Formats: sequence, structure tokens, C-alpha cells
Amino acid sequence: MKTAVVAIGGNAILHAGEEATLENQMRNLRETCAHLARMIRSGYDMVLTHGNGPQVGDILLQNELARDSIPSMPLDVCVAESQGQLGYMIQLALTEALAKVGVRKVVTCVLTRVVVDPDDPGFEKPTKPVGPYYTEEEVEEAKKARGWEFILDLKRGGYRRVVSSPRPIGIVECGVIRRLVFGGMEQAEVVVAAGGGGIPVIAKDGYFVGVEAVVDKDLAAAVLAISVKEKLFIMLTDVDNVFMDYSSKKPRPIREIRLPELQRLHEQGQFPAGSMGPKVEAASMFLKSGGEKVIITSPGKLDAALLGEAGTQVLP
Amino acid sequence: MKTAVVAIGGNAILHAGEEATLENQMRNLRETCAHLARMIRSGYDMVLTHGNGPQVGDILLQNELARDSIPSMPLDVCVAESQGQLGYMIQLALTEALAKVGVRKVVTCVLTRVVVDPDDPGFEKPTKPVGPYYTEEEVEEAKKARGWEFILDLKRGGYRRVVSSPRPIGIVECGVIRRLVFGGMEQAEVVVAAGGGGIPVIAKDGYFVGVEAVVDKDLAAAVLAISVKEKLFIMLTDVDNVFMDYSSKKPRPIREIRLPELQRLHEQGQFPAGSMGPKVEAASMFLKSGGEKVIITSPGKLDAALLGEAGTQVLP
Repeated sequence: MKTAVVAIGGNAILHAGEEATLENQMRNLRETCAHLARMIRSGYDMVLTHGNGPQVGDILLQNELARDSIPSMPLDVCVAESQGQLGYMIQLALTEALAKVGVRKVVTCVLTRVVVDPDDPGFEKPTKPVGPYYTEEEVEEAKKARGWEFILDLKRGGYRRVVSSPRPIGIVECGVIRRLVFGGMEQAEVVVAAGGGGIPVIAKDGYFVGVEAVVDKDLAAAVLAISVKEKLFIMLTDVDNVFMDYSSKKPRPIREIRLPELQRLHEQGQFPAGSMGPKVEAASMFLKSGGEKVIITSPGKLDAALLGEAGTQVLP
Repeated sequence: MKTAVVAIGGNAILHAGEEATLENQMRNLRETCAHLARMIRSGYDMVLTHGNGPQVGDILLQNELARDSIPSMPLDVCVAESQGQLGYMIQLALTEALAKVGVRKVVTCVLTRVVVDPDDPGFEKPTKPVGPYYTEEEVEEAKKARGWEFILDLKRGGYRRVVSSPRPIGIVECGVIRRLVFGGMEQAEVVVAAGGGGIPVIAKDGYFVGVEAVVDKDLAAAVLAISVKEKLFIMLTDVDNVFMDYSSKKPRPIREIRLPELQRLHEQGQFPAGSMGPKVEAASMFLKSGGEKVIITSPGKLDAALLGEAGTQVLP
């Protein structure tokens, strides 16, 4: 039995600059899902996870624009909404792609909570921008009335709300997800889980309390992969490989690399925080916790990457 | 092993006239979940389903108010969002209630699609009002640009969009839900499923296409109960019993009734379409398909009703 956790980016669902219509998102998803369906037909079972940046941003903006009529929901509830929205779109697109290659599986979306530590240093200083741009007057009002924090985005000349980005330490639904994807006595299904890095919660006296934060989706995917005891973890992004000297005139693709060497390059600053950094950190976390292989590539190179003929392959 | 499908109304989450804040909804949910937690502690495993009327109405209104900035999503996607939103709130409230009675289970929310027949007569004439009120000018624009249909609500003096309300014929995720709630070799979990009557889809060449429709949540709950082969189906509502002569001066509560007698009363017009009618129809559908018992009562009478000492008990 071959299984994998596969993470796709929120930008794979909505490309930068595209209008956020259902049609655009479904077209992009159908393209990505055609590759995933071939992987499943070749014998892999899969937990699929996804980003939600543009989509949760739109839900937050809808909440703000409708605020005089409808009480707005906190960020954790908006992430839950985005898991419903994107989970359903992925179900539609992937079920269709599977039918076209003759595979019948129930693409199942499990709403997923990610546990974070209330003492995480990420809670001390919020740094992750979310949602729309605000004017100076709106910022003063929101600071007072809602206790929000903001940064000034000089490039766009507006303020954005910032929230904490704590590290994921567990997945509440991991047992359930494992049961569905490994099957046991029954058919393994494709499970969509931990969308947008999961809904962040803090454990408290045996139950959970939601927090307004954003968990990095690659790190959450790594914790998901570890907690369902997966051996293979695949991150799909918009480049075919991880590169050395990416911004130079001669970027060099990395084909196969051992974790210590990858970490050495990361310490040299080869993988910036805004791009490949989180993926390299997610790969490290996974391989240090018993994972056997990480592949980082684009959806179009997935087939070849599974054969070891494309993408960046990271080994322990 | 005792198991049941339990349906709670959207109004149990947000009472009529209350502001739709998270606080109000969580307070109401905590109250209902305290009753559900006692039922689970007494040995029942549970598939929990819920209405979404007020909540999906608010999501539709947010879509309309933000429409100049963000492309609005069709109704099926909004239902998916409401399943994420309400599923998460129920997870929070029920996990807390379970912890308080010393029960540890993973309250799992499975995004749920409900299959409808493209030839359902419900598609011929849309009758189910959804979302906000519109002015006459807005109605003309929406008819032309979006092909929507409307009814004039004389009481409120505004137009509302109407959509089809086809009958549910299947639940895509029923096998997955059954696996989680019956447990088999593993612990049974509490599953939240088919919120808002499910996301309506039509089967096509082995995959599914979303439709803008609303499936009655009680009928969807009955189909869910049938398809996971449940024996007990409980509908929680805002009255303790089904009544005969409900609008008269002397309404008489029904304690225990056989299905043929209930159906005879229904044919006499005892249970109007806007109130107990759909629950009576859901009960009929379930008991005719092998179900053993239906209980209709309020959350506060659940304990007593399970002992046969309260509520309306319907037998085949």
C-alpha cells in the first residue's frame, strides 16, 4: 500500500491576479486534480491538504463589508468556512478527475483543527498579515474596539491586520483521518484535511478553545503527515524544484539532497521566509520525525517526480 | 452498542430575533450540547445533523453586500461554507460539554453532499425562499443577469430569491460516516454531518455537479439515518411533543403513535408544511425503510424521551 500526504498551495487554486470566481478556481483545481488523479490511479492513497490565503482573505473582506448588517466572525470561524468552501470545490474537481481515469473513491473532507501552544512565542508578536487593507481611521477604531494589531504595508500604502502564527503541535482529527485513508478492513478513501493550516485551537481542560491565528500550511501539513504516520510527504508549488542561488542569474535546481545538506543551505539563507523557507522547515520537521521522503515540485512534474525523475527529493 | 442520528434545528443555534454573534450561537449550542453529552455518556454513539437557515442566509447576504469587490459564490458553495462554520462551532461546544461529563471523543465534522434527482419535480418550480430581501429594481437586474427567480413576501413587503427544494435520494459520504460512528475495531466517534440538509449535488458520469437548491434538513437527516443503517432517529425542535389540534385552544400532545395513525393524521392536515409537516414526512420515510423508532422532542426533554417518558415516540 502506497500512501502520501500531498499539500497544494492556495495560489494553485487561484493564481495571482485572477478574479476569485468559482469558474476560475474550478478550472485551476481541475488542472491540478488531473495530476493527483493519475497518482491515485497508479496506486497511491492520499491525504490532500491545501492553502486558503486568497479565499480566507475574501471571507474576511465579506465579513468587513457586511459588518453593519451581520456581526463578523472571528478568524478561526472564517478558516472553518474556508475549509468548507475549498474542501467542497476540491471534492467536485477531484471526484471528476478520478472518474475520468476510472477510479471510484469518496473524496472525503474532514474539518480539521490544529492544536497550538498558548505559550508559543508567536503569540507575543503578531506578524502574519490577513484580510483587506485599512485606512488610518479604520485602524484606530479597530485597535480600540477590537484589540486588533496592524502593520503598515508601504508597497500598497495601506494598513493590514496582523495575527499570530504559532507552530502546529498536533492535529485533533489525526486518528479519524488515518482510519479513512489507511482503510484497514475497508476501502481507503481520499481525505481532504487541514486546509489553510487547520483551524487553530488551544487545549484546555480536555476540550478546545479557538484562537485568532494562522498556522503555516506547510508546517501543519508536516504535523499532519507525522501524526498519521505517513512515510511520503509531497509539497506542490509553482516551481518544479527547490533551487540554489534562486535570485541569481544561474539558479541551480536541487534534484536529490540529504536533510543535513538542505539544512546547511537553509542556514546560509538560500531559502527565504516568504517562499521556499517554510517548505524546507516542513520537510525538516517531517524527516526528523520518522518520515522517509519529501518531494517538492510542481503539479505538472508530479508523475515524473514519483519516479525520481523530476522535482526535488529530500531524504533523511 | 446504541447509536442514533440526532437532528437539531438551525433555530436551536440562533433563536428568532437574536443577533447572529458567535457568542449568542455558542451560548445556545452549549445548552443543547449539554443534553447531547449526557445522552452520549449514557452509552449512545451519535451522528449529529443540524439546520443552517439563519447562518446560510447571513453568508448569502455577506456575498451580496460584498459583490462589488468579491465575486459571489453560488448557493451550494455557501452551504459548504455554513457546514464548516457550524460544524466547527458544534465541535467546540460539544467537545466542551463531553469533557464536562468525563467523555473523550473526537467530535468529527464530515463535509456532506446530498444527492438529488435532476428530474425531481421540485426543479420545475422553485419555492424555497433563501437569503436577503430585495427591492423591485434589484429583482429585475438579478432575473436578467443571474437567472434567479423571486417571490413577493407581502408580510415583509420585499422580494426574496426562491430556489428549488428537491428530495434527497442519497448521501455521498454515508459509508465514511458509518465507519466513523460505528467504529468497528476502533473507538466510535461523534460525527457531525449533512448540515443544512447537505450540499446538493447531481450524479453525472461517475462524478458530481453542484446545484443551487436547498434540501429539507429533516428529510436529509432521514436519508442519512437510513443510509448509515441507523435504528433510532431523533429530531430535536422547539416543542416537547408533536401535537394534535396544535393551533386550537386544546392542543393534545402525542406520546406514542404508530406510523399508519401518524400518516392518517397528516393526511387530515394536522401537521402544516411550515412546522411539523417535514418532520412527520422524515419520520415516515425512515420507518418505512427499516428504522425502528423516531423520537420528536425538545433538547430539554431528551433524557426523559430516551426512557420513553417524554416526547413523541413514533413506531413503525
